[in-house]
Amino acid sequence: MKYAYKTLRVNTETPYIASISFNRPEKANALHMEAWEELKEIFINLSEDDAIRVVILSGEGKHFCSGIDLSLLQELTQSSSIQGGHQNELLRKKIVALQTAVTSIENCNKPVIAAISGGCIGAGLDIATACDMRYASEDAYFSIREIDMGMVADLGTLQRLPKIISEGLVRELAYTGRNVPAEEAEKTGLVNKVYSDKDELTTAVHSIAKAIAEKSPLAIRGTKHILNYSRDHSVADGLNYVATWNAATLLSADLKEIFVSKQKGRSPKFNS
Amino acid sequence: MKYAYKTLRVNTETPYIASISFNRPEKANALHMEAWEELKEIFINLSEDDAIRVVILSGEGKHFCSGIDLSLLQELTQSSSIQGGHQNELLRKKIVALQTAVTSIENCNKPVIAAISGGCIGAGLDIATACDMRYASEDAYFSIREIDMGMVADLGTLQRLPKIISEGLVRELAYTGRNVPAEEAEKTGLVNKVYSDKDELTTAVHSIAKAIAEKSPLAIRGTKHILNYSRDHSVADGLNYVATWNAATLLSADLKEIFVSKQKGRSPKFNS
Amino acid sequence: MKYAYKTLRVNTETPYIASISFNRPEKANALHMEAWEELKEIFINLSEDDAIRVVILSGEGKHFCSGIDLSLLQELTQSSSIQGGHQNELLRKKIVALQTAVTSIENCNKPVIAAISGGCIGAGLDIATACDMRYASEDAYFSIREIDMGMVADLGTLQRLPKIISEGLVRELAYTGRNVPAEEAEKTGLVNKVYSDKDELTTAVHSIAKAIAEKSPLAIRGTKHILNYSRDHSVADGLNYVATWNAATLLSADLKEIFVSKQKGRSPKFNS
Amino acid sequence: MKYAYKTLRVNTETPYIASISFNRPEKANALHMEAWEELKEIFINLSEDDAIRVVILSGEGKHFCSGIDLSLLQELTQSSSIQGGHQNELLRKKIVALQTAVTSIENCNKPVIAAISGGCIGAGLDIATACDMRYASEDAYFSIREIDMGMVADLGTLQRLPKIISEGLVRELAYTGRNVPAEEAEKTGLVNKVYSDKDELTTAVHSIAKAIAEKSPLAIRGTKHILNYSRDHSVADGLNYVATWNAATLLSADLKEIFVSKQKGRSPKFNS
Amino acid sequence: MKYAYKTLRVNTETPYIASISFNRPEKANALHMEAWEELKEIFINLSEDDAIRVVILSGEGKHFCSGIDLSLLQELTQSSSIQGGHQNELLRKKIVALQTAVTSIENCNKPVIAAISGGCIGAGLDIATACDMRYASEDAYFSIREIDMGMVADLGTLQRLPKIISEGLVRELAYTGRNVPAEEAEKTGLVNKVYSDKDELTTAVHSIAKAIAEKSPLAIRGTKHILNYSRDHSVADGLNYVATWNAATLLSADLKEIFVSKQKGRSPKFNS
Amino acid sequence: MKYAYKTLRVNTETPYIASISFNRPEKANALHMEAWEELKEIFINLSEDDAIRVVILSGEGKHFCSGIDLSLLQELTQSSSIQGGHQNELLRKKIVALQTAVTSIENCNKPVIAAISGGCIGAGLDIATACDMRYASEDAYFSIREIDMGMVADLGTLQRLPKIISEGLVRELAYTGRNVPAEEAEKTGLVNKVYSDKDELTTAVHSIAKAIAEKSPLAIRGTKHILNYSRDHSVADGLNYVATWNAATLLSADLKEIFVSKQKGRSPKFNS
Repeated sequence: MKYAYKTLRVNTETPYIASISFNRPEKANALHMEAWEELKEIFINLSEDDAIRVVILSGEGKHFCSGIDLSLLQELTQSSSIQGGHQNELLRKKIVALQTAVTSIENCNKPVIAAISGGCIGAGLDIATACDMRYASEDAYFSIREIDMGMVADLGTLQRLPKIISEGLVRELAYTGRNVPAEEAEKTGLVNKVYSDKDELTTAVHSIAKAIAEKSPLAIRGTKHILNYSRDHSVADGLNYVATWNAATLLSADLKEIFVSKQKGRSPKFNS
Repeated sequence: MKYAYKTLRVNTETPYIASISFNRPEKANALHMEAWEELKEIFINLSEDDAIRVVILSGEGKHFCSGIDLSLLQELTQSSSIQGGHQNELLRKKIVALQTAVTSIENCNKPVIAAISGGCIGAGLDIATACDMRYASEDAYFSIREIDMGMVADLGTLQRLPKIISEGLVRELAYTGRNVPAEEAEKTGLVNKVYSDKDELTTAVHSIAKAIAEKSPLAIRGTKHILNYSRDHSVADGLNYVATWNAATLLSADLKEIFVSKQKGRSPKFNS
Repeated sequence: MKYAYKTLRVNTETPYIASISFNRPEKANALHMEAWEELKEIFINLSEDDAIRVVILSGEGKHFCSGIDLSLLQELTQSSSIQGGHQNELLRKKIVALQTAVTSIENCNKPVIAAISGGCIGAGLDIATACDMRYASEDAYFSIREIDMGMVADLGTLQRLPKIISEGLVRELAYTGRNVPAEEAEKTGLVNKVYSDKDELTTAVHSIAKAIAEKSPLAIRGTKHILNYSRDHSVADGLNYVATWNAATLLSADLKEIFVSKQKGRSPKFNS
Repeated sequence: MKYAYKTLRVNTETPYIASISFNRPEKANALHMEAWEELKEIFINLSEDDAIRVVILSGEGKHFCSGIDLSLLQELTQSSSIQGGHQNELLRKKIVALQTAVTSIENCNKPVIAAISGGCIGAGLDIATACDMRYASEDAYFSIREIDMGMVADLGTLQRLPKIISEGLVRELAYTGRNVPAEEAEKTGLVNKVYSDKDELTTAVHSIAKAIAEKSPLAIRGTKHILNYSRDHSVADGLNYVATWNAATLLSADLKEIFVSKQKGRSPKFNS
Repeated sequence: MKYAYKTLRVNTETPYIASISFNRPEKANALHMEAWEELKEIFINLSEDDAIRVVILSGEGKHFCSGIDLSLLQELTQSSSIQGGHQNELLRKKIVALQTAVTSIENCNKPVIAAISGGCIGAGLDIATACDMRYASEDAYFSIREIDMGMVADLGTLQRLPKIISEGLVRELAYTGRNVPAEEAEKTGLVNKVYSDKDELTTAVHSIAKAIAEKSPLAIRGTKHILNYSRDHSVADGLNYVATWNAATLLSADLKEIFVSKQKGRSPKFNS
Repeated sequence: MKYAYKTLRVNTETPYIASISFNRPEKANALHMEAWEELKEIFINLSEDDAIRVVILSGEGKHFCSGIDLSLLQELTQSSSIQGGHQNELLRKKIVALQTAVTSIENCNKPVIAAISGGCIGAGLDIATACDMRYASEDAYFSIREIDMGMVADLGTLQRLPKIISEGLVRELAYTGRNVPAEEAEKTGLVNKVYSDKDELTTAVHSIAKAIAEKSPLAIRGTKHILNYSRDHSVADGLNYVATWNAATLLSADLKEIFVSKQKGRSPKFNS
């Protein structure tokens, strides 16, 4: 087995697809320190793994992820011998470390699909919004739960969710922490589609993943890179950047394979 | 009575909640100069008022707000002894002054909820989009009416609305000035939810306000601050900023109160 | 006939409205080099044409536009005597030239309305997203088809579409290239409204165009300019800019005409 | 006397020129809370005062300004009943208030000239860098002294000085807190010119101020506004903005006066 | 003769080097409308001309350029049948057209060297700051003269000069319009070097141009492109962009030629 | 010995100061792959090392650093089985890896001082500009040598140098690759100061380092962080950020120590 983790199940049996699942179902997949570290590690590894073209992220058991483990939160916030400015500087460093784990999903150069059943809560939602797309089963629900911990959500939801749903709704969710049921999540664009149950969800998401895995991996990596870049720059900057990107990468074996396969009437086959 | 204004009714009877309403129903709550000044003043004051945690903004009478008072518009645009560049420089200053009044809502460090019945027109919509969330009754309708005055809307709608609804719809509304009925407003995300009538709307909005007022005020203020910041910066910048913000504010009496109240099985109680 | 093009039909019979249609129906309106050049030219011309206030863009025959002509793509990407860095530099220049054609729609200082029937594919969608609004008939469908050519879409869709629909959906479409049917396009905000067939679409779009043509042309031009600016700047920057813009343009013959026409109880009439 | 302050001497006897000086020479012009408030107030007032076209800022006695008064620093940083996050949030608000006082110089729509003798230390340098230009006498010296208080300088020097002198020198000064003598200040661009003593400095600076006061006040205000804007935006953005600004203000009585006065061979005379 | 212009002398006799000079010495090279149009045209042409690798810009006769021709300024600003907002909108368009001419120097993908003798005034300085480097003879002097026309300089000096010299000096020059003599220009970085007279200047500048012309033209074009990009973006953005740029262009015939020529102990020879 | 590297000498004998030197004098400290990796590693390590407060970077032997090792450049650019887009994508990744090594200096939370003797060439200058300050001996010289390799400099000089010296000079150096002697480097701000020889340089730089090491380490770390942030943001953004930063870190044991030591008339002593 290529990837062995304590807090994550990783399945790479289907060609080109890595299925990762949070694997502490007895804790509703709450994330303690080891889980954060493994999350970061797996996405850094998968980003470099030529055998993988798409990643699916889900949760073992009933829930996708119930957020940061309370014991970790207590550890992060407990007083210590260091106080005041020094303590706060250290706290900042720890927050940045968790953010880096979440952002490793965005930086992974393969599309990451979140398949969400049950609760997607707090840090779970920070993670889901860092994925490229989100699909859910009918029992799914979503919550910016940090507000109930007396915290400003600091792992990405407040930055990324307003690109996915209306800012007016983001603010309601961030201030109230209320649960968004799957149906509302679909209607508002928080998830792309809702399926009746976890099995159907799994089947559908694998089918989407398979469709993506059949495309030119070079073009898929480039598309993700450009989408990330363009989100954070003006349209003019985004256009200029993609012109330069394509100047570097457009003329490729994959493009040739497409012209050839079209002529021969067969499906194109790509190397990674 | 703590807050006495001519053009605004201010009710602070419900603990932590300030209910403000435009109070010129006989003019469909059109905003003349005094109204703009009071609007700015109340939000600057409420931002500093520790007794208030949430603000609800609505309109007395049938309409939320019918926009800038025509007499003010005429005054702003009438010719005078100053002409040309000097006149235009002065006009710019007056526009900036009105913008500042609208932006005082965004800068108020408490969530501001717009509860909208009847017309929400022109400057009324500029104001509504500067609120955190918008809820409406079925009789509500919305219009970027400035185009019918031969004006480019200049008080915020063209900047803020595209974060709330699809840019494709914003452009249609900005060019045609057509009315958006409540149902369409809900479907497109312009309002979070529509209620059958003004009474139901008032009840529902107070219930949301109450839910927010029970959260940690420090965390609510921080969340609004971060949402404002993140809207105007890249995701990476937003993450870096919230890490620094939480380094400063996360370790608080509110956080302790939450841990304590959880252990004791009671609701947390916060100071402002 | 004022505007005579080979690849575009241009109809300026209705006062103030230019109806442009891609005119290679036998090729599903695929865009070869001449089409790109004419597209750029017509929008540069219309931007300066005082007789025109709104532009409608559609496709002759069954489809809106099936994207870049394959022969052009082959020409762009074929090997030549120049290789490596020099070849890529030249390729970049050609991509920028096509981008400039698409952006001429955004830079045209009149609203451009896309009326879409049948396929709106690849570069067709790049073009549609550069229009101000999109309306469709029920047979319309949309696809970021570039991924099936082994390419990163580089003419604007990846930059502009995330302002129109949820980023979560953009990514699914960009990675899978799947067709979005008209109904889904309406529900998600990709088009503003779907009409039963092409005739109804044409009628409805002309009615919207006519409504816009009756507004102050100066204010319409300014509104488009400000919407373009505000999309790519912070809210504070956008507010400052529109204040300065209105300082320059608010006091106009159009504003006077509105006050006068209101007093006289007639519709305002504007020069361009 | 038009402007009466406790901590500032304000002289408006020379037409169009306001000479302000820090007026606590017995404390080397250290700034306590009242001084900060008056500093902010005078610049807000002068910005609106049509009788004034240029401002000169200097210090009574031997020094320009020795920085924040230690008693204020102690007050800002002393512990209180509020602790942790709430205390830090309050501290942030107080820092922002002091920053606002400094930035009132930048926001004053008249050029502000710093005339510096003796020490220009800590907050004194924050203030000097917010002025448009700096001139000094030979006894002047400059220091980012905050580092010796265990503080990150937070009132503007770290933001504004790198636009004035090489970033390499800024960093040395910020890390070491060393004194920069007048001669080095001139050679590196920190001040525009050094004069032999305070009298010569005063004379020279008044002569510069007089030259500026004779220009079109509208054009001077615009130039300062554009310089502020351009510093914080790309060249393309700055060009676009100044085109719009001049569209609003170029055609003015001042421009006419210049053409007329040139024809008549006399100096132009402008209203404010 | 390849390039024939009325207002410009163009000499392309020296291989790879285009020497352009303003050619209205009897008007101190003041720029009327035709001159602006030709300026724009020559730089657009030279950008595409593979025979040219470096451009030198100077002035015939005693002066480099005395700025915008007064007759053009009067034409731009005279009143007409169009008034108010419409007039200002048109004025803005004309300013943008002149800006575009200046920016064509920056957009020209070859280095442009300004060789400055005599006056470099107003628009002359706008043009000089858009060049890559500036060299001068001892009789040169520089002035932001727009302030004496009652104008905010709007063709680039206020945007570009603060990257070249200290912002403190820019503001003095912009407010006073005073002449900067050559010696001060060298000391402050406004010009790279001063030569004793025009002949020496010409010789020296040609020698620099020749040195540049011997480098890889592909790398020179890329370096200019990256310097332009990096000036207007963060360091992180600039690094990311140049990595992508070099991914496209680094592996080239020029690189091979360098390795080969080094092995053979000869100078490299490049195609354009 | 705490830090043992093959390509770097690391001396941590002087308390709080790490002296690092490139240690391949026989190759003029050219950087091969191992050197890049160790460079990155040492700065990541030092950033976390509480025993170190300042870093000095110099070169063993006659030169500071002669740039990228030619063998590495050949390896990076040689053809392989992968071609076209895939090859370029890989090349981009390798460039980014080298950039990351350089940027590790900027990200190291301690000031890094470059002490430069002899050649500081190509990548050597990229590295020197990523340091906080630069000091040199009289035999030092500097060159953007990449242009002579047919390359666009891609490791930071084109981004960072324009903040240190005039953009006009940067462009000359980037296009010509000429050597800048120490004296000119001092006059133009490229280095802060020149000392007569390497010994004097070493002594002087250690003295500066010692002065920095005696300051509050928390404040020094914060100052560097803020200078980095402010370089890439607007003044308003920089002010807002430092207010938040100081809200988190100002109230510290270091601040208390300063008040106490001042009262007791002794030097303050800080923990890291």
